[in-house]
Amino acid sequence: MQKVIRGLIRSGETKVVLCVLDGLGGLPLNGKTELETAHTPNLDGLARGGACGLHIPVAYGITPGSGPSHLGLFGYDPLQYEIGRGVLEVLGLGGELSPTDLAVRGNFATVRYEQDGPVVIDRRAGRIPTEENRRLTDKIRSEIKSIDGVRVSIISGMEHRFALVFSFPEPLPEGADDISDTDPQKEGNHPLRPLPRRKEAEKVAYVVERFIEKVVEIIRDENKANYILLRGFSKYPNLPSFGEVYGLKAAAIAVYPMYRGVARLLGMEVLEVSGTSIESEVEVLKRHFKDFDFFYFHVKKTDSYGEDGNFDAKVKVIEEFDSFIPEILSLKPDVLVITGDHSTPALMKSHSWHPVPFLLVSQYTRGGGSGAFSEKECLKGELGIFRATEAMALILSHARRLNKFGA
Amino acid sequence: MQKVIRGLIRSGETKVVLCVLDGLGGLPLNGKTELETAHTPNLDGLARGGACGLHIPVAYGITPGSGPSHLGLFGYDPLQYEIGRGVLEVLGLGGELSPTDLAVRGNFATVRYEQDGPVVIDRRAGRIPTEENRRLTDKIRSEIKSIDGVRVSIISGMEHRFALVFSFPEPLPEGADDISDTDPQKEGNHPLRPLPRRKEAEKVAYVVERFIEKVVEIIRDENKANYILLRGFSKYPNLPSFGEVYGLKAAAIAVYPMYRGVARLLGMEVLEVSGTSIESEVEVLKRHFKDFDFFYFHVKKTDSYGEDGNFDAKVKVIEEFDSFIPEILSLKPDVLVITGDHSTPALMKSHSWHPVPFLLVSQYTRGGGSGAFSEKECLKGELGIFRATEAMALILSHARRLNKFGA
Repeated sequence: MQKVIRGLIRSGETKVVLCVLDGLGGLPLNGKTELETAHTPNLDGLARGGACGLHIPVAYGITPGSGPSHLGLFGYDPLQYEIGRGVLEVLGLGGELSPTDLAVRGNFATVRYEQDGPVVIDRRAGRIPTEENRRLTDKIRSEIKSIDGVRVSIISGMEHRFALVFSFPEPLPEGADDISDTDPQKEGNHPLRPLPRRKEAEKVAYVVERFIEKVVEIIRDENKANYILLRGFSKYPNLPSFGEVYGLKAAAIAVYPMYRGVARLLGMEVLEVSGTSIESEVEVLKRHFKDFDFFYFHVKKTDSYGEDGNFDAKVKVIEEFDSFIPEILSLKPDVLVITGDHSTPALMKSHSWHPVPFLLVSQYTRGGGSGAFSEKECLKGELGIFRATEAMALILSHARRLNKFGA
Repeated sequence: MQKVIRGLIRSGETKVVLCVLDGLGGLPLNGKTELETAHTPNLDGLARGGACGLHIPVAYGITPGSGPSHLGLFGYDPLQYEIGRGVLEVLGLGGELSPTDLAVRGNFATVRYEQDGPVVIDRRAGRIPTEENRRLTDKIRSEIKSIDGVRVSIISGMEHRFALVFSFPEPLPEGADDISDTDPQKEGNHPLRPLPRRKEAEKVAYVVERFIEKVVEIIRDENKANYILLRGFSKYPNLPSFGEVYGLKAAAIAVYPMYRGVARLLGMEVLEVSGTSIESEVEVLKRHFKDFDFFYFHVKKTDSYGEDGNFDAKVKVIEEFDSFIPEILSLKPDVLVITGDHSTPALMKSHSWHPVPFLLVSQYTRGGGSGAFSEKECLKGELGIFRATEAMALILSHARRLNKFGA
């Protein structure tokens, strides 16, 4: 469908703000979801006049990760396009990626050397403190700059986690990241070799294996973190540029590294935000409103509190966002959308498959179906239940950015 | 899906009337859409007992032309099947087409001859009066009968517009119409040559180019209309016959040439209507009711007034149609459907992407969801929001014309 849309794009002066409240959808506790519990007079007012519905991030019953759910909302079919786990890990830790890069998730582990080689006795190296992680990654970084002409960067994470970026001299061929994980998943087993599953991956697997050997030389006398396990080998994803596909000058306003990274992969300009509050994000939106056609505005904490199972705190973040609606409306966007990338019910302490409330404000909506902005009321709205991948066509048409299909 | 349905068809005696109120869907003006404003006691009564929903002509957010939207409603996926622009133009001007024909849109233009050839100085020849157009097309018709054994017909249109039909001795191969437009789109440029973009189009492009040369010889001393520009080369579309696919003896009742032409392309029998009123169309329906299984009943003016931005006149056409419902019901069709091919909100003065109200009357509906026939009330109906391409299966099943799928 993205191909069809791409052929219908027309230029315009209209402006779109797409607000993604991460993990917005919820489940009822004492009869009401987080969104139903929140006091949101501004969102409710918009819902009464605007077009409401619920979107399904990937497919009925499928709980999406953050990568697929964002891709879907941006109109990239997540069953067709993929952002690899290694790539998401690097972006999540604030790392940057170039088109010639391979990204990997790693963790420190503890092995015991037996006659037939190392055996994993703790896959997480006893969850070493983050400072310990920093000390080790600094050491590795200072001693290994490159392998066979491939530059390597290590990025420390929390506790036992880290990420790797292998920067090759040129873009990797399709399938070059098809390499098996070295994490044996079960303690008592040998760490596995990074094996190429296709011919195209041989060179990469060779470089990775040399890297592991060198690291193990450096850390083999550590008490706990004396080995590394790698997984999620993934090369820089080949995604069509959001701006080119939709004919929009697009900017991202997000505080968390992973979302900034995903926006960058799509070719959006990622704006600097001082601080992490919604208020500081709104300030950035106001300051740059004249400079772009499309704003991806991301609010993280709805998801974080959902994951924590903190129902009340998630409610408070929704209420806080609601209080900024008048300021956003004062900019007079032609299309304002408020939705989530997926549901994260506090009741489940995790992402879920439940459809996500979607509210579109524009002068071309029918309105009048929904009495408030909530899961139940959105079900009465004019958009019905639809796939996330349809959202961009709805947004573009309401922004008068699409030509007629056929005569 | 059409293939699946085709395999399930069973014969029957049941009769279907599909009423297409062109551009039926609307947007609210002072809180109410055209359909909500119209006083439609008969349609509202049917909506309360029947099955209501809204159909999406092509896809979410996509504004369809009349060709794709009619194809969709008749069960032909408009992303797969296409009626070319030249073909629609010929049909719209009341021309007929045979399976061996190539259709083209044309317009008279003004060129100035410079050293390196003609330069377009007015792409529309100053919008010459329609009588002037008639005089020129008559002249061309009398002087050019055929090119290289290919018969040529010219059909005059309004102002500077006309259409051409090249009748080849045998059906053209796939791709034979893949020829670039000669309209340079911008004044100050040379007219372009009709270039074949594939090998299969070479013979056709040659004939077209000879035709242009001959026409230019005839009109080169005209004051304004001294050149022609051609676009939208399209051969007779290869559409499976509606009657064969669905096992129905189908008739079309439509007043406007284009819709009569589309029905003919699908192999429907197009009935003669004396006059252009809804009343005269209903007369034809009554007269021929015993002769066919399926009636496509088209009302044009809802769309025309929508395009004009004439909200009140569109309301009046809907009310006029409503007044004929008792007469249509008196024929006792087994399935009566009232819908549109797309939305044409008077507010937008154009086709739009908004879902289209759909009402199906049969003894096999659940009913009770919708309180009236309107965009909002159809949303509460048992059919929900669905793709136009699903409509024929719904119609056929309610007409008991489909066998069970699988055992």
